[in-house]
Amino acid sequence: MSRVPAARAQSRVVPATLDDAIVGRRSIRRYRPDAVPDALLHEILDLARHAPTSMDGQPCHFVVIRDRAACARLAAIKVRHCPEDKKAFPCDFLADAPVVVAVCVDRERSHDRGVENGVLATAFLLLAAASRGLGGVYLSAHRDGDPGLAADIAALLALPAHVDPIALVPLGYPTTAPVPKALRPLEEIVHDEVFDRAIRAGGRHAP
Amino acid sequence: MSRVPAARAQSRVVPATLDDAIVGRRSIRRYRPDAVPDALLHEILDLARHAPTSMDGQPCHFVVIRDRAACARLAAIKVRHCPEDKKAFPCDFLADAPVVVAVCVDRERSHDRGVENGVLATAFLLLAAASRGLGGVYLSAHRDGDPGLAADIAALLALPAHVDPIALVPLGYPTTAPVPKALRPLEEIVHDEVFDRAIRAGGRHAP
Repeated sequence: MSRVPAARAQSRVVPATLDDAIVGRRSIRRYRPDAVPDALLHEILDLARHAPTSMDGQPCHFVVIRDRAACARLAAIKVRHCPEDKKAFPCDFLADAPVVVAVCVDRERSHDRGVENGVLATAFLLLAAASRGLGGVYLSAHRDGDPGLAADIAALLALPAHVDPIALVPLGYPTTAPVPKALRPLEEIVHDEVFDRAIRAGGRHAP
Repeated sequence: MSRVPAARAQSRVVPATLDDAIVGRRSIRRYRPDAVPDALLHEILDLARHAPTSMDGQPCHFVVIRDRAACARLAAIKVRHCPEDKKAFPCDFLADAPVVVAVCVDRERSHDRGVENGVLATAFLLLAAASRGLGGVYLSAHRDGDPGLAADIAALLALPAHVDPIALVPLGYPTTAPVPKALRPLEEIVHDEVFDRAIRAGGRHAP
């Protein structure tokens, strides 16, 4: 990423629609060993920086990690700080990702909304990656009650004291086509005017 | 939103590409009085629920507020809890939005990642709205150090104790075409392997 082209590269033949990018995206944790081209990663980060930010502070930074030892260290940090209830989904796959993007925020520019600013940019990044056939997954780079997670990542990435890591996104070409996902029906999660407790049990009651 | 169609409605003639939705999106705070059709809002919420969630918990709820008095109360709550440094951008425009979506999360399903889960869904919602010509803006529905903001919103929306408001998104047709936005160049925010302090001042130093 040392030479950033002046204009956005056009790597795709058919541009993905927003709907296809959203509906087709999945959390992908296994990647082919193929490298992610610099120009493609540049397009994705170029789109991610368009996410809204508090008071237009534009606090986001993207650290691009390809070094094998650094990716292995990120995996080890995430595994070390993994809480009990999430150990069924260990993050050791981070070590095998061709590239990991650490989304970080400058606290001096984020108006006390660092996490929200970083997550908005990460959402845009995930969709941009999906639209270009890349798989990725959202991984938190911080945890309330465990400051060591962010501190260990910040140390590895040599972040200045005013920059916090928010999310890690490993990216690569998926090894397999993702399976469709079962989503809760809209009837269960959309409410008119006030929260409808009647639908919480899984179905709207007759009036 | 009381009758939810079984299949996604097709309201658009030309589907927006992901890139156009991302690059064309702006934070819009002034809306024409025209109503946002139910079918269109349904499409947007249908896409928002595809955002990734921690451990696939799918904790998000969307409360759709069209009642004029309720929108005015949301505006008053946001204005009352506005911190000093943000008073240059008051939220009174919320009262004039044809519709406001409150993105909320069920704490029992969010695995201690309620804010991140809610913000990811809100990012998808904002892009889905932009792709259909609607304007909106991300507004936080909670604040560290001021639990009253979330409590007042939760009371207005009759949220159960285990559901937290995360963001408010007013939606409507923009009154004017948005002006292009100046973004920080990628050279200033993208880093190789570790954070490059040399570029912080606004330009990469010669080696």
